[in-house]
Amino acid sequence: MTDNVRLAVAGVGNNTSALAQGINLYRRTGSRVGLNRPLIDGIGVGDVDFVAAFAVSDAKVGRDLHEAILIPPNNYPRLDGELPPAGVTVRRGLTDATGIDAVAAAVKDAEVLLYSAPSGHPGIARAYAEAALRAGVAFINSTADPVARDPELLARFEAAGLPLLGDDLASQFGTSALHPALLRLLADRGLTLVSSYQVNLGGTEDFRNLVERPETKKRSKLNALGADDRVQVAPLGYLSQLGSRKVAHINIEARGWAGSTVSVDLKLEADDPAGGAGVNIDLIRFAAGALRSGRGGFLPEAVTLLKSPPGTAT
Amino acid sequence: MTDNVRLAVAGVGNNTSALAQGINLYRRTGSRVGLNRPLIDGIGVGDVDFVAAFAVSDAKVGRDLHEAILIPPNNYPRLDGELPPAGVTVRRGLTDATGIDAVAAAVKDAEVLLYSAPSGHPGIARAYAEAALRAGVAFINSTADPVARDPELLARFEAAGLPLLGDDLASQFGTSALHPALLRLLADRGLTLVSSYQVNLGGTEDFRNLVERPETKKRSKLNALGADDRVQVAPLGYLSQLGSRKVAHINIEARGWAGSTVSVDLKLEADDPAGGAGVNIDLIRFAAGALRSGRGGFLPEAVTLLKSPPGTAT
Amino acid sequence: MTDNVRLAVAGVGNNTSALAQGINLYRRTGSRVGLNRPLIDGIGVGDVDFVAAFAVSDAKVGRDLHEAILIPPNNYPRLDGELPPAGVTVRRGLTDATGIDAVAAAVKDAEVLLYSAPSGHPGIARAYAEAALRAGVAFINSTADPVARDPELLARFEAAGLPLLGDDLASQFGTSALHPALLRLLADRGLTLVSSYQVNLGGTEDFRNLVERPETKKRSKLNALGADDRVQVAPLGYLSQLGSRKVAHINIEARGWAGSTVSVDLKLEADDPAGGAGVNIDLIRFAAGALRSGRGGFLPEAVTLLKSPPGTAT
Amino acid sequence: MTDNVRLAVAGVGNNTSALAQGINLYRRTGSRVGLNRPLIDGIGVGDVDFVAAFAVSDAKVGRDLHEAILIPPNNYPRLDGELPPAGVTVRRGLTDATGIDAVAAAVKDAEVLLYSAPSGHPGIARAYAEAALRAGVAFINSTADPVARDPELLARFEAAGLPLLGDDLASQFGTSALHPALLRLLADRGLTLVSSYQVNLGGTEDFRNLVERPETKKRSKLNALGADDRVQVAPLGYLSQLGSRKVAHINIEARGWAGSTVSVDLKLEADDPAGGAGVNIDLIRFAAGALRSGRGGFLPEAVTLLKSPPGTAT
Repeated sequence: MTDNVRLAVAGVGNNTSALAQGINLYRRTGSRVGLNRPLIDGIGVGDVDFVAAFAVSDAKVGRDLHEAILIPPNNYPRLDGELPPAGVTVRRGLTDATGIDAVAAAVKDAEVLLYSAPSGHPGIARAYAEAALRAGVAFINSTADPVARDPELLARFEAAGLPLLGDDLASQFGTSALHPALLRLLADRGLTLVSSYQVNLGGTEDFRNLVERPETKKRSKLNALGADDRVQVAPLGYLSQLGSRKVAHINIEARGWAGSTVSVDLKLEADDPAGGAGVNIDLIRFAAGALRSGRGGFLPEAVTLLKSPPGTAT
Repeated sequence: MTDNVRLAVAGVGNNTSALAQGINLYRRTGSRVGLNRPLIDGIGVGDVDFVAAFAVSDAKVGRDLHEAILIPPNNYPRLDGELPPAGVTVRRGLTDATGIDAVAAAVKDAEVLLYSAPSGHPGIARAYAEAALRAGVAFINSTADPVARDPELLARFEAAGLPLLGDDLASQFGTSALHPALLRLLADRGLTLVSSYQVNLGGTEDFRNLVERPETKKRSKLNALGADDRVQVAPLGYLSQLGSRKVAHINIEARGWAGSTVSVDLKLEADDPAGGAGVNIDLIRFAAGALRSGRGGFLPEAVTLLKSPPGTAT
Repeated sequence: MTDNVRLAVAGVGNNTSALAQGINLYRRTGSRVGLNRPLIDGIGVGDVDFVAAFAVSDAKVGRDLHEAILIPPNNYPRLDGELPPAGVTVRRGLTDATGIDAVAAAVKDAEVLLYSAPSGHPGIARAYAEAALRAGVAFINSTADPVARDPELLARFEAAGLPLLGDDLASQFGTSALHPALLRLLADRGLTLVSSYQVNLGGTEDFRNLVERPETKKRSKLNALGADDRVQVAPLGYLSQLGSRKVAHINIEARGWAGSTVSVDLKLEADDPAGGAGVNIDLIRFAAGALRSGRGGFLPEAVTLLKSPPGTAT
Repeated sequence: MTDNVRLAVAGVGNNTSALAQGINLYRRTGSRVGLNRPLIDGIGVGDVDFVAAFAVSDAKVGRDLHEAILIPPNNYPRLDGELPPAGVTVRRGLTDATGIDAVAAAVKDAEVLLYSAPSGHPGIARAYAEAALRAGVAFINSTADPVARDPELLARFEAAGLPLLGDDLASQFGTSALHPALLRLLADRGLTLVSSYQVNLGGTEDFRNLVERPETKKRSKLNALGADDRVQVAPLGYLSQLGSRKVAHINIEARGWAGSTVSVDLKLEADDPAGGAGVNIDLIRFAAGALRSGRGGFLPEAVTLLKSPPGTAT
């Protein structure tokens, strides 16, 4: 029998809520609905224990993690069923590069540190990565800030035998998976792309933050789409009424045999934090499995789960 | 330099119009827009010559092929540019199993006989296949009637060293390519399918015929989708206003992490005859190439171009 | 205070389920959500009592109405909350024109007889109308079979001072309300219609029946759309996975200033039986109010609730 | 026979291109396709002559109007057919409030001055309005900047007997017409609105400007939608690939009978400048007709053509 993964998380937003509640739900029900990989290196989705958590909001610091995840602006719904205390008290997280040693001390018993905060704070992201290095813990950067794409940082994780996964989650089933797949299918069938766009709408606080810091995220989205200037990404649109749901519209215009026009219009609606958690759970287990077997650096098996893996533009 | 393929066609409907006009267009312009495989065994899309054609409509029989393809109820548009006479006069086609020898005689100089008539006449389809066998010509069945799926017929083509491709074209970019691809992607990302449907609307005479003979075609569509009773195909809808365009709506409902709902709604609009011709041009060249190198029977390289290849339900 | 309406219903399908459960729900909760007219002639939506019910299914006959409405093939969901017995036992309904007097006797204490059975049985529809005449009860025909459009029948109801409402419900918010409204808006803004279609998908038993008897229903839908041959209705598509939901796709192509193209694509998803019940509740109260004040024949205030009112094609 | 309207235009962007080319097209062909009002006060859509034009781009100033309208960043297409010189040379327009007298002198022979420049320059808009007052010319403000909504300015136009129309065009068939109409229909049928949003995508230079100055335009859009905080407008999305086309997605979630859910998803695609010109042509003729009959101030007949008429929020 495999030991549970010991997980530390920096950021107690919607994604952490979906992750923690989902782990609890799967553990309790034994359901396999919506799971990409029921087992990774023998580790099930319920075999993850939180051992530390960090947040910067006064409302969350000092609370049990399972209480903190339900505090606004978090708006991921409380799932049905029991949610016992997590037994982990949320600590005050970093707001600058001071305090790295304290974080390292707090996560020294963890195997994996998941950085799951709003994008747009590359200094903070690197500070947590530094803490992971000092503590000898694997690191996952789920934000669009460049960490795994930083060759120097990646080299240090490799040298230390610590896994480093990032950057930027490709949601379990979002435009980053769907849009390129459609474009590839089109090409496979011999159609010539004329133009294509995607527009993303969401209602979480993360989404609102991204709207105000568009460049980091847009770059990362374009990384996921490949370099084709016929494919455009419209600015993100924040709509509070969507709550934790996100909506994407994708359009593709192409030409087939004898120049005939082909049009595809697609609407995708999904839960944003759940889409993130469904990928984080795999990254966490990839990272723990690799750590346990002594593999450090980036893990190729995770590449389809990330928008901006090492080697893509920053 | 490769010799041009010598092609006979049974059926002078929209698909033949799109095929003949497209070949002429590509030959004249050198364009590669919308082409899946510019070359197959060294054969370009313009390297195909019509050597015989059959139709049952009085209006078409006796006319030059390039005139006949524009006669109603054909409603595929006349493409811009020159369309010189094809130099092939449309012969009277089969309406029952008599006259097979006459067809065989008429196609004896061809390499490939393409059967491109309305679905729902399996006896006629087999009669043309029989003629191909007698004439020593490769055969393509682009209809949903079982020909290549008939193990005995397939064995005879194999024994004769003649390629036999069928059944039922998967359009260049239609629901038969797109819907399964979306379902596969969903499964690859770990989502659990709840339900999915497609509805197809079209305005060609072929489409009208299919609406009145729904079973053959629906069976074939389900073959393309795989056996999953959560996936349903609504009856075809004929709408004359669509002309040679077809419209499909696909819906997918699924569940992801922690049971969260994911919905996809997609509209696809494409030209129906062009989508058929874009696949026929590859089947023709696969068949001619194989014939020239002595390979008979079904050709695995064609499997993604067909809805109901050998081995699927009839 | 107004007396409750005494309602008899012929047909114990999904629409009757949605009507009975909804009346009970509104009565219990006092909610006004989703109500077009909270009061009609002083009658609230909860002020309706069932006094008789007829069905032809062995499974339903002899059961309390509130049990019978949940028996398959009915698939309208059981709404949350209490559903006490209705106190009305379902009687055996008509399958031909014999037994009219027995029905008349059974509904003699009712004020309104609502005919809510599958379309496509005009003889049965008229037999119930005849029973209503004999019993001195207002009649509502919610099917597409011609009853209120029959000038002779209408004259007899007028002469008897009995309201007669029909034919064919325009759902509370379905294509019959939405499609013409969009076309009118288009015309109001000066656009020139090029073409338009609607396609309707559903999963109820009623829907399956309509698919097999398309003409009655299609005629009625075209009545709702007005006579414009640029507007087409695709055949109904039955998809069991939709359950009691229906989905419609509407497309409009038009031209504006200087011939510029304008396209509208719309998807509507709604509950089919609830959409029917939301209109039936108003027809019932219009009929009861008119009966009480001695107004017979067709009631103009109901015209927007019906697809094929008197004067439209049969 | 009515005299042609003498029109001056400030702004030589896409809308002016669509207006000028459309007037020429209708005049030449006699077509009535896409026209809301073929005649207003006896004035046809071809009965408008340009007598002055102002622009600020060096590339446009000094050119004949019919050349200037085709100069980038204008991307409204050149319509088929002849486009003879307009006979009007584009003058240098205002960039601040100096030069009002020169504009007044230049437009003194005009009947109507149409202000058709990018939104977001209220000072310039007022300067042109001032010039119109001095010259005794009717004024139309097609931008979102407050002019007709300014009570003091409106009073001065009224006192002078000069029509003043504005602010902000409601496109001939855009979200400002369509979205409120759908919401009204929903309410008319008794549905309870839960939430609704619209997102607008476009590819013109005007659109790009609006994206960078979102507040003025968003306020005006919300004016068109009425004050309902369940209805939200996502930020505008600029996508160069759309050229002069715009795309809008509208979603509506509502509840009907017994709380059943109803969803509407709509995609609208239209030409942006043509949608503006189709409204400008009516505003111009309303203004000219009123001026000729001595009616000044705002004209109620124009209210449905404007997003932010007098009395709405600034």
